Amino acid sequence: MTAVHNFSGGPGALPEVVIEEASQALRRAPGSELGLLGISHRSDWFREVLDEAERNTRRLLGLSADYAVLFLQGGGTLQFSMVPMLLLRGTTRTADYVHSGYWSAKSIPEARLEGRVRVVWSGADSGFARLPGDDELELSAEAAYFHYVSNETVEGLQFQRVLGREDVLRVCDMSSDIMSRPVAIERFAIVYAHAQKNLGPSGVTLVILKKALLEAEQSPLPSMLDYRQHFEHGSIFNTPPVFAIYVTMLVTRWLLEEIGDLARMDAINREKAAALYQLIDQSDGFYRAHAEAGSRSLMNVVFALKTPELERAFLAEALRAGLHGLPGHRSLGGARASLYNAVSLESVHRLCELMHDFHKRNARAFSP
Amino acid sequence: MTAVHNFSGGPGALPEVVIEEASQALRRAPGSELGLLGISHRSDWFREVLDEAERNTRRLLGLSADYAVLFLQGGGTLQFSMVPMLLLRGTTRTADYVHSGYWSAKSIPEARLEGRVRVVWSGADSGFARLPGDDELELSAEAAYFHYVSNETVEGLQFQRVLGREDVLRVCDMSSDIMSRPVAIERFAIVYAHAQKNLGPSGVTLVILKKALLEAEQSPLPSMLDYRQHFEHGSIFNTPPVFAIYVTMLVTRWLLEEIGDLARMDAINREKAAALYQLIDQSDGFYRAHAEAGSRSLMNVVFALKTPELERAFLAEALRAGLHGLPGHRSLGGARASLYNAVSLESVHRLCELMHDFHKRNARAFSP
Repeated sequence: MTAVHNFSGGPGALPEVVIEEASQALRRAPGSELGLLGISHRSDWFREVLDEAERNTRRLLGLSADYAVLFLQGGGTLQFSMVPMLLLRGTTRTADYVHSGYWSAKSIPEARLEGRVRVVWSGADSGFARLPGDDELELSAEAAYFHYVSNETVEGLQFQRVLGREDVLRVCDMSSDIMSRPVAIERFAIVYAHAQKNLGPSGVTLVILKKALLEAEQSPLPSMLDYRQHFEHGSIFNTPPVFAIYVTMLVTRWLLEEIGDLARMDAINREKAAALYQLIDQSDGFYRAHAEAGSRSLMNVVFALKTPELERAFLAEALRAGLHGLPGHRSLGGARASLYNAVSLESVHRLCELMHDFHKRNARAFSP
Repeated sequence: MTAVHNFSGGPGALPEVVIEEASQALRRAPGSELGLLGISHRSDWFREVLDEAERNTRRLLGLSADYAVLFLQGGGTLQFSMVPMLLLRGTTRTADYVHSGYWSAKSIPEARLEGRVRVVWSGADSGFARLPGDDELELSAEAAYFHYVSNETVEGLQFQRVLGREDVLRVCDMSSDIMSRPVAIERFAIVYAHAQKNLGPSGVTLVILKKALLEAEQSPLPSMLDYRQHFEHGSIFNTPPVFAIYVTMLVTRWLLEEIGDLARMDAINREKAAALYQLIDQSDGFYRAHAEAGSRSLMNVVFALKTPELERAFLAEALRAGLHGLPGHRSLGGARASLYNAVSLESVHRLCELMHDFHKRNARAFSP
């Protein structure tokens, strides 16, 4: 079996040791006589899985007791609605949204169903190739909350700082870069992230929110859309996605035991992204990054080749060499290498070698 | 390793061959070079998994092209809201609900958030030990729809006929008995079932609905709560729970290839339940079934012993003998043997032997 390198935009690569443990747990879960899928979500066994997932998450992100940690269903997309249902519905205030790319664009119409929304900056004019500076954001002190997406997976854009005012509730979709680097979560009111980039398989979404937000009076919501219900029931309001939560727990354990902490994870991720961007920047335009230099994502390196023919040839060759998941998002085309936590430096070096070699062999034929 | 028998109320037992295939697929998915969790939900590979899951579901249930088949997140509980959001919100009509036990009780307040609800029958007076006859149901021809739960897992009650009027939209929560027996789905407008009883792991919900229902004018809903969005995107509106859908596909394949059809599955399930109810009925009151004879569930056999001490002794002995998941639901106590599709006749015989033996050894000490 040839070594396989997975650069998929998500569901993405997971650590091999996690896959191996999950595979064995399906047959028989550690510390139980049952297979993982046959264990009750009300068992002590699963309570300990949830507790460890929460404990590890708190430790990795440095969360205080002011924050609740929930494991929900519905992905980031359901959070696009649950956030404004909590913070915008029934108010006359306006929520401020940054429109920085494909995913933030999806969040805005869902919020508009619940109340007034103002787009404080849009990257549409630049073809979503760059992110705003602080002086470009018209932030209101009166906003119900301020929402942004920390990493745009499709365009390969990532904020390298915390955005927004300190006097306005800050909400962030960190689906594609949570736990890839240290973040000052105490500056946020709500942070959410589906698991299938850095945390685990699809089917579970991590939500971190200030407990104080759950204390305000509110008209009743459908139970599944009410953070209160999930908080009061310790993420077991109804039958949770047991498998996805178990694997997410294993990934947080891997981060603590194999990597150590998020500063170390960040250093590894920076080394991976630097290698790839350097190769692109030194290719004399043979490869072109989509994002401008100050806005580039460490998680998703989005780039194009000079012609559609070259792109097709490159992607086909990569696949033959065991490099998977490199075609760009269907909305943008080109190529995209996603470098989530579980993608090894070795995989990135393998990709760089292929890109270097492909450039050498094709530079002449397609020189400008 | 001692043989393990799983009578859990859910997440429940799954076929061993399915567990084995899922376990291997985590390392490497059949027909792919990648492990299951690293495969894109937009890949041809996963499209074929979804297609087969739908194809097998249509074949097993005999669905016509008039019905859509969706695989969603959020469990039965989110369906408690999505159904009235589609059929009740914005109308002045009333929805008719049967209140037959624990789960139907949960569905009613969620519907009330969306419009007017009338409870056409409640089992509260009987302690939820029986189901209504047709002459006890006051069904309105004007109802927006009629909703019932086909099998109440907590109390062990199951309807052995299709309820409701032919001139009113019929909606049914079949979470705990779908695909356990043939059902005339064409008599229903919407049928929904979370997977974790008969279909697969927790984290995915099967929804079958008449496509014509999606054509009516309607004010916009949050995308994740709008069946239209999921239908138009072929269950990939956002990243679906890939693992849970894959395992569900394997279970439908097992039903077709190992069992044959739902008539055969029904015959096996009837044999399993008959063995257990017979033992209970012939125990001179040592074991007592919760449900009255005409209302008994083939899926969940709920019973009590004479004293709490006897119950504790029985459950402890069962666990030592490798019989798992027998404690009753936390709301009712006692014992419950769930006999979902993947529970073998052999497991049921093993349970009957233990119950027979436990009775013999304890009859004298606790005789009335």
